[in-house]
Amino acid sequence: MDLHQLAEQALAVHFEQAVGTTAPARLVAAMRHAVFSGGARIRPQLCTAVAHACGMNAPQLTQAAGVAIELMHCASLVHDDMPAFDNADTRRGRPSVHKAYGEALALLTGDGLIVMAYQVLLNAGKAHPDRLIALMQTLSDAVGVPNGIVAGQAWECESRADLSQYQRAKTGALFVAATCAGAESAGADPLPWRALGDCLGEAYQVADDIRDVIGQSADLGKPTGQDAQHGRPSVAHELGLSGAIGYFENLIDRAVDSVPQVASADKLRQIVRMESERLVPSSICQSYKTAASASASSLQH
Amino acid sequence: MDLHQLAEQALAVHFEQAVGTTAPARLVAAMRHAVFSGGARIRPQLCTAVAHACGMNAPQLTQAAGVAIELMHCASLVHDDMPAFDNADTRRGRPSVHKAYGEALALLTGDGLIVMAYQVLLNAGKAHPDRLIALMQTLSDAVGVPNGIVAGQAWECESRADLSQYQRAKTGALFVAATCAGAESAGADPLPWRALGDCLGEAYQVADDIRDVIGQSADLGKPTGQDAQHGRPSVAHELGLSGAIGYFENLIDRAVDSVPQVASADKLRQIVRMESERLVPSSICQSYKTAASASASSLQH
Repeated sequence: MDLHQLAEQALAVHFEQAVGTTAPARLVAAMRHAVFSGGARIRPQLCTAVAHACGMNAPQLTQAAGVAIELMHCASLVHDDMPAFDNADTRRGRPSVHKAYGEALALLTGDGLIVMAYQVLLNAGKAHPDRLIALMQTLSDAVGVPNGIVAGQAWECESRADLSQYQRAKTGALFVAATCAGAESAGADPLPWRALGDCLGEAYQVADDIRDVIGQSADLGKPTGQDAQHGRPSVAHELGLSGAIGYFENLIDRAVDSVPQVASADKLRQIVRMESERLVPSSICQSYKTAASASASSLQH
Repeated sequence: MDLHQLAEQALAVHFEQAVGTTAPARLVAAMRHAVFSGGARIRPQLCTAVAHACGMNAPQLTQAAGVAIELMHCASLVHDDMPAFDNADTRRGRPSVHKAYGEALALLTGDGLIVMAYQVLLNAGKAHPDRLIALMQTLSDAVGVPNGIVAGQAWECESRADLSQYQRAKTGALFVAATCAGAESAGADPLPWRALGDCLGEAYQVADDIRDVIGQSADLGKPTGQDAQHGRPSVAHELGLSGAIGYFENLIDRAVDSVPQVASADKLRQIVRMESERLVPSSICQSYKTAASASASSLQH
């Protein structure tokens, strides 16, 4: 079973265990809609890959950690899609949760998924109380104030925001959580794994900015041009498209270089390169860089 | 210092510690607005009173548990006030969070407070890992699916809801958490304290239904007549006003009777009676019962 299948299966198992049988049916349906929607599951995959590299010795806990992080990610997408933010009608090619179930249930779906993330950790972690507590701390740091994804989203409501701080919180925080939680779930020190999460998280945000401009609505399954429309900070607007592509490639190089010298380092580096290709295909990078250099060259003549 | 002052002070201390210094300023202001708004702080008071009765030996943890529960309560009020639910412009006599800061920040304020509840427990509980994990479980059960306040709110979105299950989840769950967390924070068995939380929680919900009909908008600091307007289940509509008042008085009696035989049992029972008086003054109960009996008597003539 590959890492994606493993993540998908773990999500299904932990979701069913946590959701129980007595909850309101429409809320449960909305929560399922939010979680089981063909996501790339990159955060749990990253968590498991790092745990492997750290000698994964509590696989159930590693899986639960990955699931908890993915649930937080899903919760943030549900709330971000709502009319108060992006007002996005679609997500991954399907109606967004508020479009399918109404705003009230979308609000509660996000709330319920945030709590479920903790429930999943609690269900899986009692045999390892120290690791459980460390994981809960990591998860909370990544989601809450002052520097988690909730704070990241809130930077959009400020008149001035530092682009790097905004992106670190909005996207980077859950990637840092994924790599750190992978280590912690295996009883290892998370510190050497922070940089990998940090670089990858920023790379994802930059890739999102690039794709929002290039416009691959059908591929993304969600509307594009949202950053400009909502006046959001964007690397693609700040550096221009070819500048943003160069910045993205640099972040991927730094992510690859940051992988600590462990037995499975090469496999992890390969995963990073593959993800990079999935996010912004190198053929696209090349064509934009060629166009930019041709344009610069014609200006010189 | 009385229990209310103690709760208020603990909230201020734990909020500041958790919120840090680098979060977006408007989000922090909105979170403060949601939390420091003159609430009765009944849940943390109840938590501390039970911990006292159990020989409170980790007062910092008890306080953190009360704060965590109050933060969850505040989060639910912010989201419940939003246009998708009650669309309430005021709360405790002030603008609701979405009126003062907009819907986007209100959404994030609720999310941030849910996570902060866990952060507060984590900050205070590391010296008592077993108690910390038990408290996190209690908190999660009280808020999430299947039977916590998020599920309770979601029953309003179902075409059929069992009134008792709805109220147990919507209001009762956090009261059960308050009494159980009080015991757990002192290293005691929470089970003997469940009934007190259960009865008090239902009494609060019934009192809310009664006050929503009687209409004391100025006293409540929020609009009344909301249950009928939103078609919500309500004991006052199901049993009539005097029936609901009788039901409320019975719940308070059961709450008083449920207090285990501990040294400070009398003090706890006194607190319950005082809260009852604050919620629905006995003079009001008496006048409605007299009116009902006069009306019944005039029908007989």
